[in-house]
Parts: sequence; structure tokens; C-alpha cells
Amino acid sequence: MKRILEFKKTPKIVHTATICGPKEAQGNLGKYIDKHLSDDYNDEKNFERAERKMLSYAIKSVVEKSGKDMNEIDLYIGGDLLNQIISSSFCAREYSLPFLGVYTACATMAESMIIGASLVEAGLIDNCICATCSHFSTAERQYRFPLEQGTTRPPQSQWTVTGAGANMISLSNTGVAIRRALVGRVIDYGVIDVNNMGAAMAPAVAHSLIEFFDETKVLPSDYNLILTGDLGTLGSRIFKEVIKKGGYSVDENHVDCGELIYNMEEKEYQGGSGAGCSAVVFNSYIYKKLLCGEYKRILFIPTGALLSTTSSQQGESIPGIAHIIELGV
Amino acid sequence: MKRILEFKKTPKIVHTATICGPKEAQGNLGKYIDKHLSDDYNDEKNFERAERKMLSYAIKSVVEKSGKDMNEIDLYIGGDLLNQIISSSFCAREYSLPFLGVYTACATMAESMIIGASLVEAGLIDNCICATCSHFSTAERQYRFPLEQGTTRPPQSQWTVTGAGANMISLSNTGVAIRRALVGRVIDYGVIDVNNMGAAMAPAVAHSLIEFFDETKVLPSDYNLILTGDLGTLGSRIFKEVIKKGGYSVDENHVDCGELIYNMEEKEYQGGSGAGCSAVVFNSYIYKKLLCGEYKRILFIPTGALLSTTSSQQGESIPGIAHIIELGV
Repeated sequence: MKRILEFKKTPKIVHTATICGPKEAQGNLGKYIDKHLSDDYNDEKNFERAERKMLSYAIKSVVEKSGKDMNEIDLYIGGDLLNQIISSSFCAREYSLPFLGVYTACATMAESMIIGASLVEAGLIDNCICATCSHFSTAERQYRFPLEQGTTRPPQSQWTVTGAGANMISLSNTGVAIRRALVGRVIDYGVIDVNNMGAAMAPAVAHSLIEFFDETKVLPSDYNLILTGDLGTLGSRIFKEVIKKGGYSVDENHVDCGELIYNMEEKEYQGGSGAGCSAVVFNSYIYKKLLCGEYKRILFIPTGALLSTTSSQQGESIPGIAHIIELGV
Repeated sequence: MKRILEFKKTPKIVHTATICGPKEAQGNLGKYIDKHLSDDYNDEKNFERAERKMLSYAIKSVVEKSGKDMNEIDLYIGGDLLNQIISSSFCAREYSLPFLGVYTACATMAESMIIGASLVEAGLIDNCICATCSHFSTAERQYRFPLEQGTTRPPQSQWTVTGAGANMISLSNTGVAIRRALVGRVIDYGVIDVNNMGAAMAPAVAHSLIEFFDETKVLPSDYNLILTGDLGTLGSRIFKEVIKKGGYSVDENHVDCGELIYNMEEKEYQGGSGAGCSAVVFNSYIYKKLLCGEYKRILFIPTGALLSTTSSQQGESIPGIAHIIELGV
């Protein structure tokens, strides 16, 4: 069996594009994000359309940066948190793009990139767009409560990022190389608190990373950065505990996208989450640091909580997943 | 740009497994399906668990047929119609499988197989399981009305198949070859009737097939069978009209999985639908006909309607998609 996907042709991330809401724009990484919304409605009549319009911008923008026409794009791979991933499907419709819809919750950016890199590696396509998004208000009302209710959030909760990120993958002499990947297993330690996604996902990250280190014989210290998706502060602490039991410490170089994106001063509690969280953080700040050579080699590990309102209402616990992508210059 | 995915190493479908509900068991293809449920509840306490248990059976069964252990499986690729594809995620959890969740509605079987064949072609993995499912009662209550309400169905409606299908893809000297594929574009002719999925999806099938014929220079008559996913009777009629306007006729060799699966005597109206429809029909009857050489070359074209209850309630029309896979011996 093959546990590690080895991209011998090292497909490259040749362009990225990002957009975020007003709250995210005020965060630590705001200045690295291409476009800021002045309002969560994004000049649309509902939040679902606002979300879709952000994703549409990210896709269009990355294609424009590449100098290609939309009809030169071989494939769009993406998904989002809305039921039946309508943000992504409707964007594919807008641009008549060949579409592979994917879903592993907030790990969707990684899944898209792994599939895209694989098809490029196989020589089946020349290029693809990988793009994901999330919106605080669509996620909140779909997964939790009507926004109008103004429900108090518990301290272990995270804040769904309003934002979208896109990148283009192709064989190229320039860009950031996708070297290896590991597709995560679905891991469940029995967490049932739907407000504590970080705790639900943390064991999956530890499992994926332990497998990755064991298989590749690399060490955490071989990387400039071990960047998890959206564990948040509490989830990150749990993750570091669990991985230590597996014989590895990431205390030196672990950072979480959910911890980076906000200033963490007030009501985001444990930090950012949502498919847009790792998509925005990676495709803005992190990509730029890789491209300029400040980071030579990193692990990008978006994380997903694979619940639905139905599964939770039926008493099921929350399975987690974490895909790993090794990136370098 | 590359529109056609050419699988030069021709990954093979080496094993398949299927399971269906009691209604499907009584249909035309019942005798080709591995296992029949005696009851829609499948000895579970709710329909979501019943659906998941079918999928779990299909995955386990195809792995057993291969003679492999579950921990020798490199990847499970799959999705389903439930919000956040919980049937698939929870099955991946059950067997601790590396998991790529996918979603293009009832075209999910094709999407899984295209991704799986691509990773095998690239040499990134040795094998994968592709599996999807649907259940009449979970789909009905998620997408339409509470079952207890006993809502009358209009004549243009289809009947969601209760069933699951799985296959294993790897490089092999035996099995059914995956030769080429085309990832569908998202097409929308403005249909808003959520009871008329066939009409919503028919244009997408025509578009994909016209692109496929134009690009490859093959003709409909080069195939033993052009097998669409779940257009049903009305959708098939519309599809044949639309494709004629594109210059091709498939009148001679087109069959639809939704038309095949039931005896079509009573309340299925336009026939079967659901991600399980093409999964069950292809992985049972059609696969056997290919394996024994009765069919030399076919096109398998699962079709998906990319709506959600939210998108319909917000007045959006229904985008369709159709992926094409060319299969042979």
C-alpha cells in the first residue's frame, strides 16, 4: 500500500487569490489579502449569494493573474460548508467550468489541492483551479441558530471565517512546489460538543502527522512551519498533547490558521474556523512567504469536522480529518 | 487545455459490490445485485443509519472480494446525498480509511471513479475504493417533505433508489478498463421545478456528450451502450432532443439507469434517481456484462442536479452536471 503521495513532477501553485470580510480584514493578515468586503452582504440580497460572490471573485482573480482565459482552465476543484456545496457548484455554473465538487469540511482546501496536483502529476490536465470559501452568517444559520436569535457563544467556540481563497496548480518552473501529501483517515475520539470543533479535530491532525513522520522519516524540525487548518487555541493545545504521546513534539514550529487570522481580542474565542480559514491564510500570507523563499519547506494541514446537524441531532459524535501537504520552493 | 482525460495505463475496475432495498430487489436488475434488504430500516433505528449500513456493506464486501485487508486499501473516495455527506464520512470512520469526500449529487459515482483512476494512473496509489449510496427515506425527508406527511408525488418525479454500490480500481491484467473520461461542466437551462430533476440534468448530459464526441471524433455508434445516470423517462426524452440539436443521435443505444432499475409499473413515475441509482446499476448488471465481454465499449454518464433546499427556497434554478467515463474490456 502507498500511504504517502509522492509528486515526482512537483506540480506548482503558480498563482493565488484571496478575499475576506471586514472583520478578517482588520485581523493580523488583512494587509496580505487581495480584497476586503466593506460589508458582509457583499452587495447581495442574502448571505449565501454574498458567499458565492466572494468565491466567484477568488476564482476569476486567480485566472486573471495567470493571464489565461476562463475557457483555458481544465478543471475547477472545490467545495464549501453549505449543504450540497452550492457556493462551489453555482460558481462552476457561472464560468461553465468542468467541476469536481469535494467535501471534507474545513479540510476542503487541502483535498482540492491534493486532487488537483494528482491530475496534473498524471498528465491528465494542464492546469486546475482549487478554491474554497466560507461565510460566518451562512454557516451560523445553517449549522447553529438563526442569526436574529443572537445566541450567546460558549468560550470553546470558534468564529467561521468570511472569506475565499483560490489557487492555480500546473507544471511550471516558477511557483510553490507540492512535494508530497497524505490523505487523512477519519478519526473520532467521541467528542459530541458541536461548539468544540478544535477538540473534535485535534486527534485527526495528530494521527495524520504521526503517520506522515513515521512513513517519511522526516522530523518536525525539518520544517519551517507546521501549519494546521483551524484547530483554534484550545484545539491546538489538545493536538500538541496528543502528538507528544505519539513521540513527536511540534512545540517549536506549529502555528494554526485559526489562531493567525484574528487579533483574538474579543469574541472570536478560540480563533477562526471554516473552509475559508485555511484557504485565506494559506493563499495570502503563507504563499507569499514561501514564494519569496522565507519559508523553504512547510507542512500545510487543513482540518475538518465531518458532522452534520442531522448526525448531531441523532446523537453521533464528531469525526475529524486532516490532510497533509508538503510544500516548498 | 485538455478536455479529455486519457488514461494511458488503463486503470481497471477489478471488483464491484452492490446492495439494495426491497423495492429495488423486485426490479429488473434485482437478481444481479449482491444483497437485498428485507426492510428499509436495515435493522437500524433510523434511515440515516440504515443508509450508512448499506454503504458500509458495499465497501466491506468489495474489499473482501479482492482478498485484501481493509488496511491495505490506499484510499476511499465517495460521497452521498445527505448534508455534509455523512454516510460516506461515517463509513470512512468505521474502517479508518484515508478519505476523499466528493459531491456532484447523483453523478458522485463517476466523480469518485475519475479521481480514483487519476491517482492510480499517476502511480500515487496502488488501489482505491469508490463507493456511493442513497436511500429513498433519507433523501425524501431531507430534500422534500416529512415521510409521515404522505405528500402526493407529481407525475414528473423520480424515485430515489435505496442502495449502495462500490468498486475497487487498480492497475491489473483483469477487470474492466477505464480508458477515457470527461469531467462535466455545470449547465443550467433555468429549470426550477424540484420535482423534475430529469429535465434539469438532461442539457448537462447533452453538453458533455457533444464535447466528448467533438473532441475524440468517436460516434455514438462506436459504443455498445450509452448509459446515463438517472434522467428517468422524461429526462431521457429531453436529452435525446437536445443532443440531436448538437448533431448527434443516441436513439439506437441509449439507456438510462433510472429507467432500468424498476419495473416501472406504478409509483416510481419517471424511474429511479439518487447517487445509489447509477452506483447500483453499473456495479451489478453493467459491470458483469462488460466483464464477460458482452459489451466491448460503453460510455457511463452519471448525472447530477446541484441544488439544495436553500438554493431552491431562494429562487435559484437547478444546475446540472454529467461526467463521462469510457469503459471497455
